[in-house]
Amino acid sequence: MLSPSADPARPRAVVLLSGGLDSTTVLAHTIDRGYAAYALTVRYGQRHAYEVEAATRIAARYRVEHRVVEVDLGTIGGSALTADIAVPKDRSPDDLSSGIPVTYVPARNTVLLAVALAWAEALGAADICIGVNAVDYSGYPDCRPEFIAAFERLANIATKAAVEGTTRVRIHAPLIDLTKREIVALGQSLGVDFALTTSCYDPNASGAACGRCDACQIRLKGFADAGVRDPVPYQHASLTPP
Amino acid sequence: MLSPSADPARPRAVVLLSGGLDSTTVLAHTIDRGYAAYALTVRYGQRHAYEVEAATRIAARYRVEHRVVEVDLGTIGGSALTADIAVPKDRSPDDLSSGIPVTYVPARNTVLLAVALAWAEALGAADICIGVNAVDYSGYPDCRPEFIAAFERLANIATKAAVEGTTRVRIHAPLIDLTKREIVALGQSLGVDFALTTSCYDPNASGAACGRCDACQIRLKGFADAGVRDPVPYQHASLTPP
Repeated sequence: MLSPSADPARPRAVVLLSGGLDSTTVLAHTIDRGYAAYALTVRYGQRHAYEVEAATRIAARYRVEHRVVEVDLGTIGGSALTADIAVPKDRSPDDLSSGIPVTYVPARNTVLLAVALAWAEALGAADICIGVNAVDYSGYPDCRPEFIAAFERLANIATKAAVEGTTRVRIHAPLIDLTKREIVALGQSLGVDFALTTSCYDPNASGAACGRCDACQIRLKGFADAGVRDPVPYQHASLTPP
Repeated sequence: MLSPSADPARPRAVVLLSGGLDSTTVLAHTIDRGYAAYALTVRYGQRHAYEVEAATRIAARYRVEHRVVEVDLGTIGGSALTADIAVPKDRSPDDLSSGIPVTYVPARNTVLLAVALAWAEALGAADICIGVNAVDYSGYPDCRPEFIAAFERLANIATKAAVEGTTRVRIHAPLIDLTKREIVALGQSLGVDFALTTSCYDPNASGAACGRCDACQIRLKGFADAGVRDPVPYQHASLTPP
């Protein structure tokens, strides 16, 4: 059965899908806006495969074409998410909102958008969607609006379609100005099945979230603020709101 | 024995090294200018491994640190260099200088520079060197000076060091305004061992260049114009100048 989003009359959009709350909400939002979505997961040497598995489940649920492209940033190191550096836990709200943590992956969003641009160009898609967020965003430089704008400028110089004047590439970051509470509310309004998503930087062997890394803390606070129950399993049952 | 380029007092530079004539000349030029060079080969789903083998030989010759990062653009397709599309042969000089050929890899240099930026950031390097060329360049959009300038702007927004104001990233494209003749002459003046390099898009099983693809034609003309003998093996011995 063909997905409604595979309708050839719809404009194509490449959606970066990590398997997390934000990118899943962006996928639902992109389909809701009438695009034929093409989900792209870039496997950048993550230490655990849960993200890729979650992305695969989500793409299947939405019946969209899904590609997983390996980019072995683990060869390069420089981050707790790709190298053997401990993921910080139980950081205070002040720490969460100041500085750039060790979970920052060097140039990660530049790499993700570059691969998305490659697929968009091969597909003839003019639209690329990414779930970056500049509010509750862990302080990553490549989550800021000026980064998205600079990449869009680059994309319109870098591609064959740009040279030939046939396509104007647009980078969509629909969550960029939303709080985590607002993202949860948007996801809920779009019918996102949050149980399919994963956000934890350091889940245990059965995939349960640690509840203590920056990503878990920001996620838990977003659900709590939105008054929505987070359905994913946590290692400490007390963390799951009733 | 430590390479002279590993001297900790020298500024670090990431050099994109494909194993071709141009990137090898850039590596030699970068070391000659006093940088500690770090050679980066991005294996982007090429149909043959000769380029990676050549890059490995060249990095070993210059005794520089070398990383090969896999980026599976073959998953995405859209190019004769990554998908099952025939490499064009025996194109006329007019064809060579007009339009964008099927060997164009979507967003390739954006992907290469993104990975280079990631490694540069992990290394604390401010300089990234790439052997793009806008003269005898096969008409690729991402070989133009405006592309390099746009990527440099992006890089200075994308990274932790940029946010913290500690590093100004520079993208060096020292060959961008040179003809192939001038590149051969520069390589020769720097003592580049051209026999280590490979340019052909479609070598045979023993690695001999076809002599007929765009890359071979441009390379052969460059050597001929410079009056230098190209030492690499061609499938038809008559193509190797005496």
